[in-house]
Amino acid sequence: MNKVLVLNGPNLNMLGIREPAVYGSMSLKDIETAMTEIAGTLDLQLTFHQSNHEGQLIDWIHEAHGTMDGILINPGAFTHYSYAIRDAISSVGLPAVEVHLSNIHKREEFRHRSVLAAVMVGQIAGFGAFGYELGLRALHQHFVEAR
Amino acid sequence: MNKVLVLNGPNLNMLGIREPAVYGSMSLKDIETAMTEIAGTLDLQLTFHQSNHEGQLIDWIHEAHGTMDGILINPGAFTHYSYAIRDAISSVGLPAVEVHLSNIHKREEFRHRSVLAAVMVGQIAGFGAFGYELGLRALHQHFVEAR
Amino acid sequence: MNKVLVLNGPNLNMLGIREPAVYGSMSLKDIETAMTEIAGTLDLQLTFHQSNHEGQLIDWIHEAHGTMDGILINPGAFTHYSYAIRDAISSVGLPAVEVHLSNIHKREEFRHRSVLAAVMVGQIAGFGAFGYELGLRALHQHFVEAR
Amino acid sequence: MNKVLVLNGPNLNMLGIREPAVYGSMSLKDIETAMTEIAGTLDLQLTFHQSNHEGQLIDWIHEAHGTMDGILINPGAFTHYSYAIRDAISSVGLPAVEVHLSNIHKREEFRHRSVLAAVMVGQIAGFGAFGYELGLRALHQHFVEAR
Amino acid sequence: MNKVLVLNGPNLNMLGIREPAVYGSMSLKDIETAMTEIAGTLDLQLTFHQSNHEGQLIDWIHEAHGTMDGILINPGAFTHYSYAIRDAISSVGLPAVEVHLSNIHKREEFRHRSVLAAVMVGQIAGFGAFGYELGLRALHQHFVEAR
Amino acid sequence: MNKVLVLNGPNLNMLGIREPAVYGSMSLKDIETAMTEIAGTLDLQLTFHQSNHEGQLIDWIHEAHGTMDGILINPGAFTHYSYAIRDAISSVGLPAVEVHLSNIHKREEFRHRSVLAAVMVGQIAGFGAFGYELGLRALHQHFVEAR
Amino acid sequence: MNKVLVLNGPNLNMLGIREPAVYGSMSLKDIETAMTEIAGTLDLQLTFHQSNHEGQLIDWIHEAHGTMDGILINPGAFTHYSYAIRDAISSVGLPAVEVHLSNIHKREEFRHRSVLAAVMVGQIAGFGAFGYELGLRALHQHFVEAR
Amino acid sequence: MNKVLVLNGPNLNMLGIREPAVYGSMSLKDIETAMTEIAGTLDLQLTFHQSNHEGQLIDWIHEAHGTMDGILINPGAFTHYSYAIRDAISSVGLPAVEVHLSNIHKREEFRHRSVLAAVMVGQIAGFGAFGYELGLRALHQHFVEAR
Amino acid sequence: MNKVLVLNGPNLNMLGIREPAVYGSMSLKDIETAMTEIAGTLDLQLTFHQSNHEGQLIDWIHEAHGTMDGILINPGAFTHYSYAIRDAISSVGLPAVEVHLSNIHKREEFRHRSVLAAVMVGQIAGFGAFGYELGLRALHQHFVEAR
Amino acid sequence: MNKVLVLNGPNLNMLGIREPAVYGSMSLKDIETAMTEIAGTLDLQLTFHQSNHEGQLIDWIHEAHGTMDGILINPGAFTHYSYAIRDAISSVGLPAVEVHLSNIHKREEFRHRSVLAAVMVGQIAGFGAFGYELGLRALHQHFVEAR
Amino acid sequence: MNKVLVLNGPNLNMLGIREPAVYGSMSLKDIETAMTEIAGTLDLQLTFHQSNHEGQLIDWIHEAHGTMDGILINPGAFTHYSYAIRDAISSVGLPAVEVHLSNIHKREEFRHRSVLAAVMVGQIAGFGAFGYELGLRALHQHFVEAR
Amino acid sequence: MNKVLVLNGPNLNMLGIREPAVYGSMSLKDIETAMTEIAGTLDLQLTFHQSNHEGQLIDWIHEAHGTMDGILINPGAFTHYSYAIRDAISSVGLPAVEVHLSNIHKREEFRHRSVLAAVMVGQIAGFGAFGYELGLRALHQHFVEAR
Repeated sequence: MNKVLVLNGPNLNMLGIREPAVYGSMSLKDIETAMTEIAGTLDLQLTFHQSNHEGQLIDWIHEAHGTMDGILINPGAFTHYSYAIRDAISSVGLPAVEVHLSNIHKREEFRHRSVLAAVMVGQIAGFGAFGYELGLRALHQHFVEAR
Repeated sequence: MNKVLVLNGPNLNMLGIREPAVYGSMSLKDIETAMTEIAGTLDLQLTFHQSNHEGQLIDWIHEAHGTMDGILINPGAFTHYSYAIRDAISSVGLPAVEVHLSNIHKREEFRHRSVLAAVMVGQIAGFGAFGYELGLRALHQHFVEAR
Repeated sequence: MNKVLVLNGPNLNMLGIREPAVYGSMSLKDIETAMTEIAGTLDLQLTFHQSNHEGQLIDWIHEAHGTMDGILINPGAFTHYSYAIRDAISSVGLPAVEVHLSNIHKREEFRHRSVLAAVMVGQIAGFGAFGYELGLRALHQHFVEAR
Repeated sequence: MNKVLVLNGPNLNMLGIREPAVYGSMSLKDIETAMTEIAGTLDLQLTFHQSNHEGQLIDWIHEAHGTMDGILINPGAFTHYSYAIRDAISSVGLPAVEVHLSNIHKREEFRHRSVLAAVMVGQIAGFGAFGYELGLRALHQHFVEAR
Repeated sequence: MNKVLVLNGPNLNMLGIREPAVYGSMSLKDIETAMTEIAGTLDLQLTFHQSNHEGQLIDWIHEAHGTMDGILINPGAFTHYSYAIRDAISSVGLPAVEVHLSNIHKREEFRHRSVLAAVMVGQIAGFGAFGYELGLRALHQHFVEAR
Repeated sequence: MNKVLVLNGPNLNMLGIREPAVYGSMSLKDIETAMTEIAGTLDLQLTFHQSNHEGQLIDWIHEAHGTMDGILINPGAFTHYSYAIRDAISSVGLPAVEVHLSNIHKREEFRHRSVLAAVMVGQIAGFGAFGYELGLRALHQHFVEAR
Repeated sequence: MNKVLVLNGPNLNMLGIREPAVYGSMSLKDIETAMTEIAGTLDLQLTFHQSNHEGQLIDWIHEAHGTMDGILINPGAFTHYSYAIRDAISSVGLPAVEVHLSNIHKREEFRHRSVLAAVMVGQIAGFGAFGYELGLRALHQHFVEAR
Repeated sequence: MNKVLVLNGPNLNMLGIREPAVYGSMSLKDIETAMTEIAGTLDLQLTFHQSNHEGQLIDWIHEAHGTMDGILINPGAFTHYSYAIRDAISSVGLPAVEVHLSNIHKREEFRHRSVLAAVMVGQIAGFGAFGYELGLRALHQHFVEAR
Repeated sequence: MNKVLVLNGPNLNMLGIREPAVYGSMSLKDIETAMTEIAGTLDLQLTFHQSNHEGQLIDWIHEAHGTMDGILINPGAFTHYSYAIRDAISSVGLPAVEVHLSNIHKREEFRHRSVLAAVMVGQIAGFGAFGYELGLRALHQHFVEAR
Repeated sequence: MNKVLVLNGPNLNMLGIREPAVYGSMSLKDIETAMTEIAGTLDLQLTFHQSNHEGQLIDWIHEAHGTMDGILINPGAFTHYSYAIRDAISSVGLPAVEVHLSNIHKREEFRHRSVLAAVMVGQIAGFGAFGYELGLRALHQHFVEAR
Repeated sequence: MNKVLVLNGPNLNMLGIREPAVYGSMSLKDIETAMTEIAGTLDLQLTFHQSNHEGQLIDWIHEAHGTMDGILINPGAFTHYSYAIRDAISSVGLPAVEVHLSNIHKREEFRHRSVLAAVMVGQIAGFGAFGYELGLRALHQHFVEAR
Repeated sequence: MNKVLVLNGPNLNMLGIREPAVYGSMSLKDIETAMTEIAGTLDLQLTFHQSNHEGQLIDWIHEAHGTMDGILINPGAFTHYSYAIRDAISSVGLPAVEVHLSNIHKREEFRHRSVLAAVMVGQIAGFGAFGYELGLRALHQHFVEAR
């Protein structure tokens, strides 16, 4: 059984409350429940965290070093400027997958660029809450292939 | 009576102490006192917060959802890169006004661009501490017109 | 009593007639009437001019030298390219405030940049016709502080 | 019968006199005569104006509001920087067509970009004096389809 | 009687079927029928081709060498990157006119630039299906003046 | 049962033969076999095509109009410049998902930008052959939610 | 005896009044007097004009066609954006010299570029009022060499 | 004896017919004849192909995998945008040499950049038809050194 | 005896644990021990702090105002975007030295730019853990020269 | 009597020999002779040097420190990249004037920018050999005004 | 018999000593010996020079005027910034060929651009020492065709 | 005992004479004396050279090959454009340290970029003459760690 840290960045605690046209109507709680269900079928154990604080996200990534096998992260707006989170991912050496609810390539110019993508295994964007399930499957497959 | 969250970002706790040539000689406390006075004449109720932590500012913006009617914010240097604060403002759907003490267009190139301005009602820059009063009046007028 | 030259640039004579969704439903005349009222309470004397001719605006700015104490200007589209108006403001050495009806940072890319802002006391954008009142208050405060 | 304002911008009064290799040998008068002839066959009534003054062109565009049905404009060099004329076209809400004598895409880099094109029905470039006839036909068709 | 090759590039076979709000409701067949009618009045003989294959368009342009007198082309999306079609036009030395149904200057940034325009006689954009008629008239005039 | 067109662009016929370090050791045939298996569990019917010809890919996309319910596409290098494929996707109005074997954000600068992403439902990159399975699941979920 | 049109653009009527640190303490009148003196020794006849109106400057340039032998121009801020003045100079085909009081290459970035320089015989910048004398001598030499 | 695939891209079938000032007066046939002669002296066996279709060129490159020892290619205008051909060259792992008839660095800006050069052994430009002979010699030397 | 605040930014708590090829094998603790030793010989008193939270670093910088004589900072990834830390350094008016373990100019493009350097006394990069010693010596010399 | 160092940079020794269409038919010797004549009338004493070596020009500039009163320099192509000559001019603190034979603003893009201009009194370009005389007069006037 | 000046720029004297992985194992002496041999078969007479001094290279180019028939140059790093060498080549009017040992398009971004290429007959890059032989053959062919 | 070549580039011979506000009041001689003293304590043997000639600096770097153990260089303005010095450092394979007297990141934009830094061990900037001592210590530490 592989352990996965599931991180959600700034403003994702507001999911389901505001801007459902862009981000969908499920709350973060709903998404986490659905993920736990899928995780069971994939033999993955999930730990969930959300924060609006960049430093807190980095602390959690560091704690994953030696205790987790992979990271699933929706970095929210930090996607576009947090080189510190990028370095945190590099520093722990764990496989990580980047998920975005919306298709960031369809929105404002500044959302087209991810400063994190280069240190990720891969990126999934545009499939709403279902993207988290795809991300878990991608990490699971990564673990299988790495065995 | 409308409730307004007044947020001050990084380094604004140092107002009046350093660089008075750029930022004026009033402390943040002095500014808040003056604002409270004006607020009375405009029938506004103010809640003040200052932090050097981006995440803390975002948390306060989220808390304003459902408890406040508008936001007055001097984002300090976060003006130029915090897409996370931008998304926070969008996520709560409250009218917000951006205030800058100095005329940011007269200073270093990087200060000319606000990544927040596009989600604001409007922007006021260059009038020192008096800009906060103008910001309150602008929000007040916004409430009046929205009635 | 301080004298203020109130200048409106190209197309502002069309206010209230066209594109009310962007610029509001008040005519320029309505705005001037409202400003005169406020000016009375601030002990300011206003002189109004509007022109679609860049050169005419410059001529009026020059005439303000020695006869006026400050300038309130909505430069319209000249905001984005008239270095000649910028130099005119510099040449008369009067405090000037730039007002925009719409939030220029929310609109087309070319409207985000003001070539005039660097020679202004400050800039106010996004508050519709009410922005002129804010601008008068800002100038008034400037006169008070300069005494 | 639809009324069309035909505007020619800076230096077009010099047509036929100088640089015939670039702009052809017909004078502006000749072009207007040819246009009048075509207009007859299309049941259009034309009003001609030329000015080297940006403000004058804007004044005429404003006057067209409520008196004309469409605008045909060769903005000359204003094509490349007059955001004020762009706003004037938007402000009157009339269908407008942009005509250039030369193929502006073949010439200096700065001539490749039109700051006006985005508020036009369409653009015609490179066909010399004949482009005006094409422009009239395009406007006429626009009137027919809008009926 | 002059012979004109009428070329339509990628996706123009879908005209009338999809996105009528952008491209109009006429099919390519309808447009060709209308063009044939006009061609008769202008003493032009038309040959029609459409392809989604860049290479096929180039082959047809080469075949026009020695058999046609001019080219009318709507290059579709190739407008923005096909330097090969540009060179093909140069290589056959025939007068060519570029037509776009929509006003490309009003749409996404990448559509504002035509890599073909510099080798064309001229460009017509924004007049829907009627633009093809204008293009034929422009070519016809070109033949008349070249006699 | 939904029908999905699975398109592979240039050089993907070489999968498994060359550069396995970048693109993995499975052949395109192997991938298609694995996809068919998954499709069965998702009640999807797949049609496979691969071509090195941009025009051929566009023809197939057009043919999908009225015969298919969605498109899964790995556009290969066309990702970075084929505005014609972008327009083809728009023209047929089918939900489409973009898949990349490698993490394009980790490679040469030119691979970071997809000119297609803006017309897609979403994008999946970096998970090797498994990305196709993820893409099918994403389309399937899209069909379920659209019911 | 050669006739020279001496043109001064926007804000140069303010010379000697404001910003003497940048532009010197001589008034435009003083400069014209000094130029007249020098012109006598060079057998040149000068006609002086100043305007803050771009269109007026263009009108005067056109009038010089056939009545003057050369143009000396300090375009002020129009240097940086008036493509219309550039075209006016081209349209009359007279030798023209561009003079700037200050060293424009030492000042703000936007002042480093002259959109007029490419149609001038040459450019002189940084020598204050004396630059006009140098400009006259340059034009005079141009006439001598062209004889 | 080494086998070399000689590929010519779009518009090179027009060699000798048009634009001899730029591309020389020899036809592609003439060049191939001269190359065959040189190939004999270098013990190289040549296979010639030309196409205006990017996909066809890619197909031929793929066929060279396992049947040829090297590639000599004049990609024509594809030089500047065909990332698909670039990937095709990478995918077959054969040594390739890029030849241009004209000195691309002397011509339009867009011709200065080759998106293919980074996957080539080397590049030869500016020597007309003789460049093909130089390219063959370069490939031959490459084979000799690799023995 | 001068007091120096030694600040380490995000991910520097991971030193010695991960990526020793880039950042060396010493832990932050080891580096602090070595610095304390050197500080003794230079009569400097050191206070050490590390945080992954931008706001925490700013708070510590503010606290240094009036209690410390200088700052030695390795800002980690904040180097590249934290204008808030830049303003914090300016706000306390203390001499500060920026140290980087790796030669940031040799690494990814985004690491070449420091948004902090302009408010520092100087910058030292590329000498691993030894750079901290150099930084202390540089600050010490600064104190000596300022006496 | 003021002493002026007259420096000519790379390739100016070839004046009169090659490219007379661009640089005129006078040799550098001829120009120096004409300058000596003018210098007599202005009470200036000239020292002439030409070199194709950047370092040699810098050495001569240094030698001028304490022995010369001003510098007249035509830096040739060093104009566009020699920051070392720029620093040399700054280091000796002498008034310097930059002269160019051709109108550099009319030629290749790279010639439009002078990295030296910001440390010069002023710049003269486009008047051929006569520009040197203008430069001497400008320096002379500078000496007169500085007395 | 044609005379060719063979110039090698900075650091090429170090050939064979350092970085053989990039530049090969032959010394410059070895290359010159091989060239002399080939020159005999082509009836060319070679003069060799190498210098790390830009000015020295320019002096030699000037000396070639009237004494040589062509130039073969490997400008080393001067390729990327020496506009002075570019002007030197133009000034002597001799046919010149640019050779690079490595494929400069595969290396650091700054090596992709040659400021010299526009004044050359052509460019050869990526074939190691053998590139010099190709360059000689290209020059020889140039002489033959110019007869 | 390790041998270090200490190189100073253009204009550094002027140290102490001019612009002491920027570069300090010590002469280069003074700096070299101070360095020799420090070198004694570090068991380093120094060889000093200064030149304004780029080629001379390259020659000295080449001579260091096989005779020196490291290089300390203040490249002056060559920092910003001398790719030839960069290649020279690479060619000799010696550890090198770049020192700047002033904080180049605080000054003109062009001084922010070093084209040399990528081939250095590290860079020290902003500490005046003391930076040379820091540079020697950095090299010494490099030798110690490499033992």
